[in-house]
Amino acid sequence: MSRVRVHNFSVSLDGFAAGEGQSLEAPFGHAGGRLTEWFFGTRTFHEMHGTPGGSTGADDAFASNWGPGIGAEIMGRNKFGPQRGPWADEDWKGWWGDDPVFRTPVFVLTHHPRPSITMRGGTTFHFINAGPTEALEAAREAAGGLDVRIGGGPSTVRQFLAADLIDHLHIVVVPIILGRGERVWDGLEDLEQRFDVETASTPSGVAHVTFTRR
Amino acid sequence: MSRVRVHNFSVSLDGFAAGEGQSLEAPFGHAGGRLTEWFFGTRTFHEMHGTPGGSTGADDAFASNWGPGIGAEIMGRNKFGPQRGPWADEDWKGWWGDDPVFRTPVFVLTHHPRPSITMRGGTTFHFINAGPTEALEAAREAAGGLDVRIGGGPSTVRQFLAADLIDHLHIVVVPIILGRGERVWDGLEDLEQRFDVETASTPSGVAHVTFTRR
Repeated sequence: MSRVRVHNFSVSLDGFAAGEGQSLEAPFGHAGGRLTEWFFGTRTFHEMHGTPGGSTGADDAFASNWGPGIGAEIMGRNKFGPQRGPWADEDWKGWWGDDPVFRTPVFVLTHHPRPSITMRGGTTFHFINAGPTEALEAAREAAGGLDVRIGGGPSTVRQFLAADLIDHLHIVVVPIILGRGERVWDGLEDLEQRFDVETASTPSGVAHVTFTRR
Repeated sequence: MSRVRVHNFSVSLDGFAAGEGQSLEAPFGHAGGRLTEWFFGTRTFHEMHGTPGGSTGADDAFASNWGPGIGAEIMGRNKFGPQRGPWADEDWKGWWGDDPVFRTPVFVLTHHPRPSITMRGGTTFHFINAGPTEALEAAREAAGGLDVRIGGGPSTVRQFLAADLIDHLHIVVVPIILGRGERVWDGLEDLEQRFDVETASTPSGVAHVTFTRR
């Protein structure tokens, strides 16, 4: 059976995985780049964005697991873009340019379906109004036997965890106090009891915590 | 100037530093021993309680910094015991037996002062109705030039952090989702900007995060 995986999911010490006030100018809201700084430095991030260089140490070892073996992604609408409610602007094709980093089908969860968008490089965005189980069925079918990645944001990850649909969860504890934004852990008391858990700190100051389903 | 230090302060991934429902039978509420398991295994903990053995690795290296250089402790009333409101039972002398582990003056913050209690081994409990600044003045005077430890619980640590009175904060991120209890980070947005922060994971699965005032 293909696995359902979450990778490179940064969380502050106070449990926020996104800042407050996402907008076109501030994709991460008031958090800015603070949650993802450890990731921006890695070779994996540089390769995603076509820039040379990047670290190849422990942070990159974790970051690079993001792609291999993945056949489809599911993301929440708030990860896809800053618009809320009915689509005022169907020209919006995500934050990732003409040639998005995904290179697989991507299922965007939204109450407002719209036609699929085929991008360069193998990414197709599908827009579906579906709960976690139904969305996962569609993504599994599209993934052709490969794994499905749950790409975020926080409420999407939380919903899939609550439905016990995640096999591998890689979070990155970033030692900052964000104070406000979107909490990821609400309603997930005792989550760890369904998983084997390991923790590894790296010189960038973060702690990578992996949850592997028992 | 003597420093103000917090040591061995365990926090869950969702930011709780104590469980819900503290009582005589359950000093940590529904958290049980889950927040402090890493500590119970160390030689430092064993020595505190007069039992042989215990680990002497990385967890103990952090744990053992608790005592040296400390001349007084300040703790919240909820750390001292499970009673709330006026003291119904003045026979209660804390969780720590006749010969408490502190071996210094200990200032217990309470709206209901009562006479000081001198215990064996150098511990004296003083009960004062005071805010952080005033309590620290009293503790500093009693500490005779040594450092003052803020012993918890969560709301006491939070108040001293909010008042910017902490020089060294050692927290231990425990990879569990507690779900309910007492949050430590509320109202402390951007706290990390006043500190140099380091993170070190250990084989027990926790991450020690130290905040050293800039």
